[in-house]
Amino acid sequence: MDAPDVSIHEVGPRDGLQNEARTVPTPAKLELVQRLAHAGLRSIETTSYVSPEWIPQLADSDELAALLPDIPGVRYRGLVPNERGYERFLAAGGVHGVAVFISASETHNRKNVNRSVGEHLERLAPVIARARADGFPVRTYVSTAFGCPDEGAVAPEAVVKLAKDLLALGAEDVSLGDTIGVGVPSQVRELVAAVGEWVPLERITLHFHDTYGRGIVNVQAGYEAGVRQFDASLGGLGGCPYAPGAAGNVATEDVVDLFERSGVRTGIDLEALVETTAWLERDVLERPLTSRVFRAEMGTRERAARKRQA
Amino acid sequence: MDAPDVSIHEVGPRDGLQNEARTVPTPAKLELVQRLAHAGLRSIETTSYVSPEWIPQLADSDELAALLPDIPGVRYRGLVPNERGYERFLAAGGVHGVAVFISASETHNRKNVNRSVGEHLERLAPVIARARADGFPVRTYVSTAFGCPDEGAVAPEAVVKLAKDLLALGAEDVSLGDTIGVGVPSQVRELVAAVGEWVPLERITLHFHDTYGRGIVNVQAGYEAGVRQFDASLGGLGGCPYAPGAAGNVATEDVVDLFERSGVRTGIDLEALVETTAWLERDVLERPLTSRVFRAEMGTRERAARKRQA
Repeated sequence: MDAPDVSIHEVGPRDGLQNEARTVPTPAKLELVQRLAHAGLRSIETTSYVSPEWIPQLADSDELAALLPDIPGVRYRGLVPNERGYERFLAAGGVHGVAVFISASETHNRKNVNRSVGEHLERLAPVIARARADGFPVRTYVSTAFGCPDEGAVAPEAVVKLAKDLLALGAEDVSLGDTIGVGVPSQVRELVAAVGEWVPLERITLHFHDTYGRGIVNVQAGYEAGVRQFDASLGGLGGCPYAPGAAGNVATEDVVDLFERSGVRTGIDLEALVETTAWLERDVLERPLTSRVFRAEMGTRERAARKRQA
Repeated sequence: MDAPDVSIHEVGPRDGLQNEARTVPTPAKLELVQRLAHAGLRSIETTSYVSPEWIPQLADSDELAALLPDIPGVRYRGLVPNERGYERFLAAGGVHGVAVFISASETHNRKNVNRSVGEHLERLAPVIARARADGFPVRTYVSTAFGCPDEGAVAPEAVVKLAKDLLALGAEDVSLGDTIGVGVPSQVRELVAAVGEWVPLERITLHFHDTYGRGIVNVQAGYEAGVRQFDASLGGLGGCPYAPGAAGNVATEDVVDLFERSGVRTGIDLEALVETTAWLERDVLERPLTSRVFRAEMGTRERAARKRQA
């Protein structure tokens, strides 16, 4: 099979499940990862090595990591907040790469990790250096790259500087995140052009949220600007479970359907994704998931079922 | 105030309410139209003069038309399925223009009106001619222009031919409709280019559905292709009310927020739209509406209210 035209990095098991009110049992997490790999996802963020006190939903990260099956071509990645998390990542094994995060805005960074952007960068430096030395690729999430809930607009220069610093520290990839979902296509073009002056496009990933319904239009803008790596989350996981209908990360199904119908190959089986979301919604989370493509497919199935009964 | 950069034609009161399980009382419809006009919408499709047996939800079209307030700069439009509907439109008064519809695919047209595309065009000819002679502008909806639920792909040539025929009959405007929401940006560009060879861009409107989450990306693609007129529906009205979470027309709020944040002026007050959707959801339809921008705004308000209480 030819290599796909775009790479989708699945963040649902980590970025999605950490936001759920319900803690998902480890066997269900394992099944989720296996189903995602079976659907064709080649890069899956499985968990986070944060303190269980911060995020009890992911307290089983060591146990889960030890259970992950080795599947040819499938790479797992774990979020590592600091050196202590990196120690846990190392000890647990089973995961092929790490991810670290930092905010482009001071206020958001301080709220998240109680440190300035500069101080957090200093803390990340030894994590990145050690991972590199140990042979693990490092991806970096730059949050609030398109806007900050507290500060509003974020200067592209701040994002460019951070991306350069992170790559200089040894990161292989920067994922520019629209944490609050406010970005528009013109902004995507501008930011990709600004960061792209210093970072090769193949080392830029785009991470969009569908909060205001612009996840897909921003993915499209990023694709047209030459980016070929996108983060996405099965079913649109990652929305706030307390706000019914509020959308989270752009849904993997929606991204796959956009690309495949546009003739851009993803290497991912949409049908298998929809089956997985249906299982997750019905058997695991028991709350409606927001992916538009998933909801449309479920509607089509329900109508077909009623027709058969009639 | 300067003229806006784009025109949004609001179809919620007609295209939205005709799909609701609940028939909305006439006074609430009147309030909806007034609120939309107050929010800045200058073109509002208020009702349809179809047989009440077909669409009981709009059985009060004559009564509603007689009640509509005359607001400077605001134009109402009514859907007219045939000459008999046109007679009712004329008799009721109060509405400034008509709209007719036809499908680009034979199967869909036959299912809708039990006639071939050619036969339906013949039936529409006298409606368009009479409206023109009476001084009413005529817009035309070309359904399934991006795909048909029965036939699948629809040839751009069929859409081009229909657009040319409709304009030759005297229509002022063709609205190319993605009835089932399957379109992608490349298709939007191709269809606008193909129709645009024969029809000036200012006479083309685009009508997208958010079924697969691509309403906004297709609006953006249409804008980039030079189209400046878009149909939209408050709250995303127009989805099937029996399929929870299923999306309908692209939501007016979502289109306005996309454009305004991109520096494209719509002349529409987003805050007033959100208030109107909140009222419609809570007091009139009593079912959750699907606009992402609306849902995000409601989430923000709920969090602020909880914070005040705490």
